[in-house]
Amino acid sequence: MKTVLVLNGPNLNLLGTREPAVYGSETLADVERICAEAAQGLGLRADCRQTNYEGQLIEWIHEAGRACAQGEMIGVVLNAGALTHTSIALHDAIKGAGVPVIEYHISNVHAREAFRHQSWISPVARGVMAGFGVRGYGVAVLALAGMVGD
Amino acid sequence: MKTVLVLNGPNLNLLGTREPAVYGSETLADVERICAEAAQGLGLRADCRQTNYEGQLIEWIHEAGRACAQGEMIGVVLNAGALTHTSIALHDAIKGAGVPVIEYHISNVHAREAFRHQSWISPVARGVMAGFGVRGYGVAVLALAGMVGD
Amino acid sequence: MKTVLVLNGPNLNLLGTREPAVYGSETLADVERICAEAAQGLGLRADCRQTNYEGQLIEWIHEAGRACAQGEMIGVVLNAGALTHTSIALHDAIKGAGVPVIEYHISNVHAREAFRHQSWISPVARGVMAGFGVRGYGVAVLALAGMVGD
Amino acid sequence: MKTVLVLNGPNLNLLGTREPAVYGSETLADVERICAEAAQGLGLRADCRQTNYEGQLIEWIHEAGRACAQGEMIGVVLNAGALTHTSIALHDAIKGAGVPVIEYHISNVHAREAFRHQSWISPVARGVMAGFGVRGYGVAVLALAGMVGD
Amino acid sequence: MKTVLVLNGPNLNLLGTREPAVYGSETLADVERICAEAAQGLGLRADCRQTNYEGQLIEWIHEAGRACAQGEMIGVVLNAGALTHTSIALHDAIKGAGVPVIEYHISNVHAREAFRHQSWISPVARGVMAGFGVRGYGVAVLALAGMVGD
Amino acid sequence: MKTVLVLNGPNLNLLGTREPAVYGSETLADVERICAEAAQGLGLRADCRQTNYEGQLIEWIHEAGRACAQGEMIGVVLNAGALTHTSIALHDAIKGAGVPVIEYHISNVHAREAFRHQSWISPVARGVMAGFGVRGYGVAVLALAGMVGD
Amino acid sequence: MKTVLVLNGPNLNLLGTREPAVYGSETLADVERICAEAAQGLGLRADCRQTNYEGQLIEWIHEAGRACAQGEMIGVVLNAGALTHTSIALHDAIKGAGVPVIEYHISNVHAREAFRHQSWISPVARGVMAGFGVRGYGVAVLALAGMVGD
Amino acid sequence: MKTVLVLNGPNLNLLGTREPAVYGSETLADVERICAEAAQGLGLRADCRQTNYEGQLIEWIHEAGRACAQGEMIGVVLNAGALTHTSIALHDAIKGAGVPVIEYHISNVHAREAFRHQSWISPVARGVMAGFGVRGYGVAVLALAGMVGD
Amino acid sequence: MKTVLVLNGPNLNLLGTREPAVYGSETLADVERICAEAAQGLGLRADCRQTNYEGQLIEWIHEAGRACAQGEMIGVVLNAGALTHTSIALHDAIKGAGVPVIEYHISNVHAREAFRHQSWISPVARGVMAGFGVRGYGVAVLALAGMVGD
Amino acid sequence: MKTVLVLNGPNLNLLGTREPAVYGSETLADVERICAEAAQGLGLRADCRQTNYEGQLIEWIHEAGRACAQGEMIGVVLNAGALTHTSIALHDAIKGAGVPVIEYHISNVHAREAFRHQSWISPVARGVMAGFGVRGYGVAVLALAGMVGD
Amino acid sequence: MKTVLVLNGPNLNLLGTREPAVYGSETLADVERICAEAAQGLGLRADCRQTNYEGQLIEWIHEAGRACAQGEMIGVVLNAGALTHTSIALHDAIKGAGVPVIEYHISNVHAREAFRHQSWISPVARGVMAGFGVRGYGVAVLALAGMVGD
Amino acid sequence: MKTVLVLNGPNLNLLGTREPAVYGSETLADVERICAEAAQGLGLRADCRQTNYEGQLIEWIHEAGRACAQGEMIGVVLNAGALTHTSIALHDAIKGAGVPVIEYHISNVHAREAFRHQSWISPVARGVMAGFGVRGYGVAVLALAGMVGD
Repeated sequence: MKTVLVLNGPNLNLLGTREPAVYGSETLADVERICAEAAQGLGLRADCRQTNYEGQLIEWIHEAGRACAQGEMIGVVLNAGALTHTSIALHDAIKGAGVPVIEYHISNVHAREAFRHQSWISPVARGVMAGFGVRGYGVAVLALAGMVGD
Repeated sequence: MKTVLVLNGPNLNLLGTREPAVYGSETLADVERICAEAAQGLGLRADCRQTNYEGQLIEWIHEAGRACAQGEMIGVVLNAGALTHTSIALHDAIKGAGVPVIEYHISNVHAREAFRHQSWISPVARGVMAGFGVRGYGVAVLALAGMVGD
Repeated sequence: MKTVLVLNGPNLNLLGTREPAVYGSETLADVERICAEAAQGLGLRADCRQTNYEGQLIEWIHEAGRACAQGEMIGVVLNAGALTHTSIALHDAIKGAGVPVIEYHISNVHAREAFRHQSWISPVARGVMAGFGVRGYGVAVLALAGMVGD
Repeated sequence: MKTVLVLNGPNLNLLGTREPAVYGSETLADVERICAEAAQGLGLRADCRQTNYEGQLIEWIHEAGRACAQGEMIGVVLNAGALTHTSIALHDAIKGAGVPVIEYHISNVHAREAFRHQSWISPVARGVMAGFGVRGYGVAVLALAGMVGD
Repeated sequence: MKTVLVLNGPNLNLLGTREPAVYGSETLADVERICAEAAQGLGLRADCRQTNYEGQLIEWIHEAGRACAQGEMIGVVLNAGALTHTSIALHDAIKGAGVPVIEYHISNVHAREAFRHQSWISPVARGVMAGFGVRGYGVAVLALAGMVGD
Repeated sequence: MKTVLVLNGPNLNLLGTREPAVYGSETLADVERICAEAAQGLGLRADCRQTNYEGQLIEWIHEAGRACAQGEMIGVVLNAGALTHTSIALHDAIKGAGVPVIEYHISNVHAREAFRHQSWISPVARGVMAGFGVRGYGVAVLALAGMVGD
Repeated sequence: MKTVLVLNGPNLNLLGTREPAVYGSETLADVERICAEAAQGLGLRADCRQTNYEGQLIEWIHEAGRACAQGEMIGVVLNAGALTHTSIALHDAIKGAGVPVIEYHISNVHAREAFRHQSWISPVARGVMAGFGVRGYGVAVLALAGMVGD
Repeated sequence: MKTVLVLNGPNLNLLGTREPAVYGSETLADVERICAEAAQGLGLRADCRQTNYEGQLIEWIHEAGRACAQGEMIGVVLNAGALTHTSIALHDAIKGAGVPVIEYHISNVHAREAFRHQSWISPVARGVMAGFGVRGYGVAVLALAGMVGD
Repeated sequence: MKTVLVLNGPNLNLLGTREPAVYGSETLADVERICAEAAQGLGLRADCRQTNYEGQLIEWIHEAGRACAQGEMIGVVLNAGALTHTSIALHDAIKGAGVPVIEYHISNVHAREAFRHQSWISPVARGVMAGFGVRGYGVAVLALAGMVGD
Repeated sequence: MKTVLVLNGPNLNLLGTREPAVYGSETLADVERICAEAAQGLGLRADCRQTNYEGQLIEWIHEAGRACAQGEMIGVVLNAGALTHTSIALHDAIKGAGVPVIEYHISNVHAREAFRHQSWISPVARGVMAGFGVRGYGVAVLALAGMVGD
Repeated sequence: MKTVLVLNGPNLNLLGTREPAVYGSETLADVERICAEAAQGLGLRADCRQTNYEGQLIEWIHEAGRACAQGEMIGVVLNAGALTHTSIALHDAIKGAGVPVIEYHISNVHAREAFRHQSWISPVARGVMAGFGVRGYGVAVLALAGMVGD
Repeated sequence: MKTVLVLNGPNLNLLGTREPAVYGSETLADVERICAEAAQGLGLRADCRQTNYEGQLIEWIHEAGRACAQGEMIGVVLNAGALTHTSIALHDAIKGAGVPVIEYHISNVHAREAFRHQSWISPVARGVMAGFGVRGYGVAVLALAGMVGD
């Protein structure tokens, strides 16, 4: 049974309490449940993690690179939070690890402040989804699986 | 039975022959088939149209605004092609018609030329998807239906 | 009896339903009536048209150029909608046709989003009015007539 | 009998001698006469003033704010001259005084040097008129009266 | 006998009356005659068309793509008028249709306003000519034929 | 007994009536009282002035330069209003007079419009405070006294 | 007894040895002592922490959000060091945690290199202070207490 | 005996005490003496004035325009201080008054901060001199006289 | 027999060996032969020169100015190489010498790196050609002759 | 025996597997060996470390500052990876610690994407080397030793 | 008898024939005569040279550096023509040679095209003069002599 | 015995006298000696040249291209001085000649004025070194030899 890795970056541990008008009232636990169900329906296992450290995200992506190379993982659904807009190191990590990544945003970042329109993840991601809420994580898992032929 | 409108803009009639390395070898007929299947699975009817005229796209969006207001349509999946990057008139049409729109791009426009990163559709769209290929139109229909509660 | 041509561009057919807080609740029919009354008071005939196609607007301006040259028309009140901000072809049409144009906007575009501050019509227009609502079309007809000595 | 305040800023005392090709040969006295006539036709009294000092303009706008609040004035037609393009203090004065302002320019500033396209008045004005010459002050008075329902 | 397609965009129907100091006094009929003669001298047939609609230009380029693929046409001499500077859709049409295009401008656009220096056609054209007047269309036909080996 | 000079620029005479949501309901008289109390607690005398003229502010700063040089004044708390963002002459006045200045803003200008983020005062001020309301003037007096060792 | 949290970011552990001409010779221990005294005078307890990790700062701000919601803390005095200029994740943390923050800088960052003028903290801070040295931390504690009514 | 007007703007009354390393130790009285001597040698009378108010400078330039038109004055040597970089109203005053102006700066502004490189005076001045110190005012008087043939 | 001057700038002596994929395998000798043949067919003599020194190009253009004034030369076909993008001195030389110039580029510079899109030659050239290869020099000679009526 | 510290930042643990066309096939172990050999030849000891955390790099630089001050270390060869382009905190750490730093890049970053041309390390580094591959670390050690006279 | 070096750069050999409306009808010989007379009046010898080569200008400035150091020359009046706007090498030459330079321009470059407003000479010149025509070279010689105390 | 070519551009003949604080007191003769020794140690011969003419540098690079192709030279160490920042022609020369180039700067240009951060050499160089002083030329020779396997 292959894994799909779901990574959430800085401040996503606040889900449910942080700006509910923007992010909704569902929590990170809901994200985990939604991903688990979506993965299960595809014969996959969802591994959901969250961190507020850029360095930790980079190392999880390196780990995903190795797991994908060994056929144990199909790829990553990555919501890097605000690091999306500032971290070239994450960009290099994805490029260097050679792992299929779906960039995911709960809100439609393209309709918010200008600084949220710039993404260092997009140029190295396979696909990008934004605006589909917490429930959209499940669609992202589905889309990743469809894209990498799993 | 409600409709989901799938609108394709300039040059998408070339699908299958235009830069296959970027857009794949599937054609607009495949898009129609994929959308039809996805809609059918949701108890909806897909209405797929293509035009190379900005004026025509604007009027179809106005039409969608009226249809949605009358409960006959759930919204629009819109791939406006290059007009995405230049047409403020489309932006105003969507805002004025008050219709739920999923912005859709076959290729990952965020990873291509800089001029493809600017979108006039995004600020008035509900959600944005890019990079999921011709088959991703089906996912977009699914996501739109989920988002508007249909 | 000379004519004054009143041209409305993309999305202005939505007047009355589109963002009433910005554009008011009067419709394109009200615009026609207001212009007709203003023209009549000046011994002129108002010819009001609307289109969502840039090509159509260009050809109407060409037509106005010929009518003005033949002394049948005094000029154009032009609300080009969002094409104001993007269409160099309209700029060239006005310059090429040599027709007196009053650029008109219902809302105060200068007080809205930055992209609405750039106008391709202004450099080739005789005068510019913005923010005077639907009723201001009548003032624009009056001002045009005063300006061209009719 | 209510007042309409007509304020002219720096260099407008040169009207009639300054660059006649741009501003015409009519003088500030003509502006006063034109405004007086337009106001009279509306049952209003025009109060025309000119200054080359930014500080003076600011204080006249404060005065207008108080007069409007007391129902003695309907608003201001303001041609701030070059301060239009540089004075944030005027912007704040209008916003702070809460007075209805029509921004007025004799020439079509939008068709002149780029630095004349930027206006600090526009975002806090009700309406903007440019290019209608000295005679257009009368139309501005008319438009202001129409707009504020007087 | 193969065809060379000569496409003229918005406002080029005004040739001869529009800004003669810039564009000369020859008309679109002269363009047709000049192209016909140049083509004839090369054993080719010139097909000259003009439109003010972007959508129409796009579809003619698609048509040219098919005709070139079938060996019936050698390529396109394209004067897209002001759409040169704004239409990414035309850029995509040329790229998508895979047709040899010579970008042509009657006046030396590089010596005019800054906004005329930006071309969306150039990056997908084989060659660019500007400033050679109406008579230069014949040279463009000649150059296209020489370039594609016809 | 030394003086602390508190200078308020354009539109600050509107305090209490101007945009209360931004500036609060306290007036310039409250500023004077708050500064007087803060100064008194430090064995100083507060001298509060307001003007809408840039020239006047410049001359008060020159005066402060002389008074500081003579040991009669400890420095200036300066809220230059909108001149903060536009007046290089004020910048030069402070630099030229060699007087210690605390730049003060009632609202958090850094959280408002982008044009309020640029300050010509900051590079020549000793310290900057913003967002602490009318009551914060007292803290500014305290901080100035602490900083210059008085 | 409520707490005031004083957070110092990267490189502030160097205080006293790092560029004394800019930052003075007092150390982080002095900061702690100054804050403790200021807090004590207000019936508060100061909790001073320093870290060189962005992730750690984010988590402390989350913690402050919870403590403030429970009435155990009044807010945060935050000197984020160079992260001020680069960390959108800190911006989101403050906004998401909903905690009152005073942005504090020892030196007058507005008078230093241009890159220090940009702050991601300011738009979500209540107030901003810069240039008041190590001793100014005490004033910041005082100002925070005054502002949140404690 | 004709006059040459020498105008000094904001902060030039500080000459001799303001940043002597940049501006030297000579005072405004020295400027007057130097100009008087230079004018005398040319059979002219120097009229030296200084103000910190933009409005005053504008009105002096208007006055110069009238005096030059009446053959009583040969032109203006203008050191507008920091208004050089910000005042479009001064630009318009010089253009509107039609008076020959030599722009003068004591220090080499082109070698100082970037914001001192932008001048609103230069485009309407006859000649520009910078960097020649207080004594250079005499050379400017000489150059103005030579240029206007007096 | 009049002359047409063909000037090639820096690095064009490398033709044939330099990046053949971009510039082809023909050499400067081929350019000379092609120009000679084209000139001969028009009853002209081609004078081809190459230099890597900007100063030399400037002096040849001065020489062409004198020769054209004396009726011995019809103009210049100029491929200034990389100096096209950097040399304002060449721009001034062409303007100062008053000589008809066709700007020529072997490759389509408009489709290459952004820095090759900027030309100091274009604003003072009569016409511009790019992308027509080494053989296109002949067409440029022909077009120059046609343009200057020789 | 003094130490030379060799610090590698984010993603450099991927050396050998990450984009071999850019970075070569040698690993971080090779970097260690090469540095050790280079140091040994100079009578030094190489201390090689790698981390993906910015906070860790900052603290190692602080440590180096102390070690250099105590004469135990000669300086740092720093390849900060992508943090080079984003971390002002690293810039401040180097400046604050006062430690000699050679900025090192395996690939020629100046010839790659534009965002890799901006370095926050360069302004505080003694020297910069880029493009010399994994083996160039040895040269960097040599150059550092030569530069600091060890 | 000391020398003053007068250097003229590219295209100044065209003086008298080049754009007389801008540069007047006087020639380089007139410049030499005017400088000779001005120098003679000061007990100096003028050495006037012109070149179209940047390299030559650089070497003449090096030569001037040596001559000044040996007390044989007082400095340079430099009209670098268009190299003013592009040559950092000239900037470095002046800085490196340590020679007093007056930057001179015949026309008022600050009132012409924007690209003529940027000068690489100004930051390393002692003084700048522009707009004083050919006769102004004499004033420049005078001003240089006065400035360096000769 | 193969050659290594060491090219120095404008103003490097001033070494030893030019800004010693930046460039040190060693001269071009020292550069030659250092390069000779470094080359000798590698079994190579150093050929050191200096010029102030861009054209000459271009031709030496062409010569190097031929010498490398014939196996007589290993490459070039190039310090192009200020031409580094302005000469696209040098960029094209290196690319066209196909010669291995190490870009070398005595001072750390990345830590100096912004205009020295832009290099036209870097994108076509193999490696870049800056800040290592005159003695660093020897390291550059060593690094070049190591890089090209000689």
